[in-house]
Amino acid sequence: MILAKVKGTVVSSRKAEKMAGVRLLLLEKIDPVSLEGKNDFVVAMDGVGAGLDEIVFYVSGSGARMAETTKGLPTDATVTAIVDVIEQNGHIAYKK
Amino acid sequence: MILAKVKGTVVSSRKAEKMAGVRLLLLEKIDPVSLEGKNDFVVAMDGVGAGLDEIVFYVSGSGARMAETTKGLPTDATVTAIVDVIEQNGHIAYKK
Amino acid sequence: MILAKVKGTVVSSRKAEKMAGVRLLLLEKIDPVSLEGKNDFVVAMDGVGAGLDEIVFYVSGSGARMAETTKGLPTDATVTAIVDVIEQNGHIAYKK
Amino acid sequence: MILAKVKGTVVSSRKAEKMAGVRLLLLEKIDPVSLEGKNDFVVAMDGVGAGLDEIVFYVSGSGARMAETTKGLPTDATVTAIVDVIEQNGHIAYKK
Amino acid sequence: MILAKVKGTVVSSRKAEKMAGVRLLLLEKIDPVSLEGKNDFVVAMDGVGAGLDEIVFYVSGSGARMAETTKGLPTDATVTAIVDVIEQNGHIAYKK
Repeated sequence: MILAKVKGTVVSSRKAEKMAGVRLLLLEKIDPVSLEGKNDFVVAMDGVGAGLDEIVFYVSGSGARMAETTKGLPTDATVTAIVDVIEQNGHIAYKK
Repeated sequence: MILAKVKGTVVSSRKAEKMAGVRLLLLEKIDPVSLEGKNDFVVAMDGVGAGLDEIVFYVSGSGARMAETTKGLPTDATVTAIVDVIEQNGHIAYKK
Repeated sequence: MILAKVKGTVVSSRKAEKMAGVRLLLLEKIDPVSLEGKNDFVVAMDGVGAGLDEIVFYVSGSGARMAETTKGLPTDATVTAIVDVIEQNGHIAYKK
Repeated sequence: MILAKVKGTVVSSRKAEKMAGVRLLLLEKIDPVSLEGKNDFVVAMDGVGAGLDEIVFYVSGSGARMAETTKGLPTDATVTAIVDVIEQNGHIAYKK
Repeated sequence: MILAKVKGTVVSSRKAEKMAGVRLLLLEKIDPVSLEGKNDFVVAMDGVGAGLDEIVFYVSGSGARMAETTKGLPTDATVTAIVDVIEQNGHIAYKK
């Protein structure tokens, strides 16, 4: 899974039928040490109700369809967790 | 899913049988902030009837076969949405 | 799918049993604008009878096993189309 | 599979239901020659009880769900081995 | 599939149960023109009995579990062929 920050949302009215009602998040991947954005973006389905600027991680590939809310959906990226704590070398690098 | 712009089409007469009648789009990945092309291209099946210069996103991997129109097809990239709005940090970064 | 040019073949006598008789192509990825090689190579199974120097595209991942000739084979890249035309912005960028 | 070092853990209280009780490791990919970190991080499920600073490898994609403890979980990266020895060109490059 | 050279082996006593008895190879990806190593390494399961310094290719993703010896194993990379010949533009670029 890859750590990222929620930067916004993507809206589409003309899309694959199964996607009706699914919330689409614009994520920017972050460096887990500096927590800075890497200017590398991905659109992910929201599996946890994540909000703007929250640090999350997403699962890619077929794993993106293993969340409770994304079974059978045409997704390759789903946010499956809002991060509370990142611990590195015994220190708290991030705390929500 | 990855944001991209439709730059053209690819035509093939000698291809895997199942692909008969499938429209193939040439996509250029874009930066979601500047909306500029990244000179990184992919050929994707069209799952939504996207037209030239439209901003779309595509799903890769096995998810590319989860759209209504691509089940069982030999694809690793399918356009599943034409983008209406990209919202970033509460502002409209793109509106169709 | 990714556009590439057939640069040669790879031959192996000691390989997974199911691969017997399968033709293995050495592909170089190309830039769809300049049609130049990107010095990035992949070995793909041949699903369409592609010849040297032909421009093709290949499908990766599990999609590589969705062609008529590659079901159940240990492949992550299969050529599924020989390209006739690449059209960009309404102009013919490549014609076979 | 990719060699990496365990750098810490990631904790989340709001996550996909199936993930309850799963330990999440923050991994940094390493160069197998120098054993130095590559400043490239991934969050992986722990399939072997790996500890801080241990050298491990993880499996990505659908293979991440083929460990005994990760079947059906929404993961794209699972640590499946703690490395004892890396042998290169007949020499021991790393020994635990 | 990606061309690589066998650079060594990786040994682990604490690993996913199904991996018992599986030989793990350390591979370095090579440039198919110069045959030089690219300083990019991957750990792969051995599906063909490859030896040190042999040029092979490996299959990634779910295809890595389609070899006779890797069904159901937690792998994302399996060596499925020892390369005898690489032919480029009608010339022999490599012969074992």
